[in-house]
Amino acid sequence: MNPTPDSLAHLRTLTRQFARERNWAPFHTPKNLAMALSVEVAELVEHFQWLPTGADAELDDDARLGIRHELADVLLYLVQLADRTGVDLHAAALEKMALNAAKYPADPSAGLPAKR
Amino acid sequence: MNPTPDSLAHLRTLTRQFARERNWAPFHTPKNLAMALSVEVAELVEHFQWLPTGADAELDDDARLGIRHELADVLLYLVQLADRTGVDLHAAALEKMALNAAKYPADPSAGLPAKR
Amino acid sequence: MNPTPDSLAHLRTLTRQFARERNWAPFHTPKNLAMALSVEVAELVEHFQWLPTGADAELDDDARLGIRHELADVLLYLVQLADRTGVDLHAAALEKMALNAAKYPADPSAGLPAKR
Amino acid sequence: MNPTPDSLAHLRTLTRQFARERNWAPFHTPKNLAMALSVEVAELVEHFQWLPTGADAELDDDARLGIRHELADVLLYLVQLADRTGVDLHAAALEKMALNAAKYPADPSAGLPAKR
Repeated sequence: MNPTPDSLAHLRTLTRQFARERNWAPFHTPKNLAMALSVEVAELVEHFQWLPTGADAELDDDARLGIRHELADVLLYLVQLADRTGVDLHAAALEKMALNAAKYPADPSAGLPAKR
Repeated sequence: MNPTPDSLAHLRTLTRQFARERNWAPFHTPKNLAMALSVEVAELVEHFQWLPTGADAELDDDARLGIRHELADVLLYLVQLADRTGVDLHAAALEKMALNAAKYPADPSAGLPAKR
Repeated sequence: MNPTPDSLAHLRTLTRQFARERNWAPFHTPKNLAMALSVEVAELVEHFQWLPTGADAELDDDARLGIRHELADVLLYLVQLADRTGVDLHAAALEKMALNAAKYPADPSAGLPAKR
Repeated sequence: MNPTPDSLAHLRTLTRQFARERNWAPFHTPKNLAMALSVEVAELVEHFQWLPTGADAELDDDARLGIRHELADVLLYLVQLADRTGVDLHAAALEKMALNAAKYPADPSAGLPAKR
């Protein structure tokens, strides 16, 4: 069965093929992918570092396009790192949300917990 | 039409509901979410920092579970940051892969480009 | 001649001795130290991620002590990374300030440049 | 009494003056400086992400100069963040080394502790 076209499993298939066609697998150790992921996240952070909140009105078109591309880069490295460490990213996210729900019970009046 | 259960759009729906039930939206500015994302990525990096490559044989069960949870945390913040900046994460990833394919033509003999 | 007690060169001497007495040198490759540095910086960022500005009045005593310790950890890894890559950190900082002064001429009315 | 020319206190004096002459203080909140610090660290990490260890023989002259500049940028933001949070960086580093020495007793045969 093929993965649903809009699933993370589908992106995983595409990134595998992309790396194979360029022979990048030897460089894509989990350690190196984790570093590359952190570098891409910083390129995302860079767009927000001097802004008050990063809300739409504070961003010009260049920044918006840059953010779109950096979000994509982060996702693509994340998918590859999960693949190389044998983690089903979607299932792991659902599991973690269940753990978070138990840890932080719903309470609209509570505000942010001190430690999260 | 509802999002496919294994899609990023589905995770977006779940994270919206989760934040709404706890009244976390005021804290979830794009700037703050970008910072939180970088913190979660570092917790992932921490598992690999002293290892040779991070391959399976170098990881014990504790590390493997930690990595699974941190990968999930990174994805959940990424989904929320994309949501708050109006980016369709899946579409952005496909677009970026097309740009990458043009920038780095397939060539199994080439190895990693100096600048990537 | 011994390094001045409050200099970075003095800290370098102390960190060398510390690592030697524990036989940590084999783990302290530049790559690993760069990762460790990024992890410590994230622990610092964590203290500020949900705050408006991080000014004193927003911090309790626990946060203040945590920040003090994380700032120290960042400096200690930075000193070690500079040492392993053969960089005189103090001289490099002075050089970089001279480059920055040429790139961003003094102008109290200018505000932050768009790209920095 | 003036700070020793090769001390962190001297760099602090220089960064204060630099920011004052450009009216950057309003942007230099602790939160923003922590973000900027994390971005500079990632630019440092970027030089090492695909290398085996980052040892000298793996680096060309461009990489070496880049690393020198990024190390300087990290130090300069670190000095400014410590200044804005009222931390004496040198004293904090000495304190932290004393805590580390108690936590990890000298033992050349021990190797790296599992959690550090």
